[in-house]
Amino acid sequence: MTLEKLMAEIIVCFRKHAGSDGNSGTLSQQELSEMAKKEFPSLCQSPKKDEILKDIFAQMDIDGSNTVDFKEFMVFLSCITIAVEDCCKK
Amino acid sequence: MTLEKLMAEIIVCFRKHAGSDGNSGTLSQQELSEMAKKEFPSLCQSPKKDEILKDIFAQMDIDGSNTVDFKEFMVFLSCITIAVEDCCKK
Repeated sequence: MTLEKLMAEIIVCFRKHAGSDGNSGTLSQQELSEMAKKEFPSLCQSPKKDEILKDIFAQMDIDGSNTVDFKEFMVFLSCITIAVEDCCKK
Repeated sequence: MTLEKLMAEIIVCFRKHAGSDGNSGTLSQQELSEMAKKEFPSLCQSPKKDEILKDIFAQMDIDGSNTVDFKEFMVFLSCITIAVEDCCKK
């Protein structure tokens, strides 16, 4: 799969999860939890996952709107990807 | 494909292209051009693509090292993805 397609998949995935409540422009905390369980299975092994997800949501919600828009989502996704790539180098 | 897998694919793709010169930590301008042709086929339709890619490389190379590291690459990839998603909304 080309990077071009990967980018399109990221947009489609965000909209799929964000659209559960009829508004595909933003993720609510509930939608983020559902997304995390499906899209980040290994991250969700922890017994403390609900607590972790609550904290993650607060950090993602840069403008404090109690929702996460696509820009906030991409900033978060990039930070995790950079951190994972950095770990792989060590 | 889960977002988790998409993230891993982005890392693998970067390293594959960055590794052509033996250093998989950074992209040279030549490596970026090769990556763009393979990974962004629709972006590379323009007859001015070489000129465009030179300009893109200069913008990606935030620290002026004449190479693009993974962090710079992810900032760039996120900006394009956000711009594409924004276009799709209009």
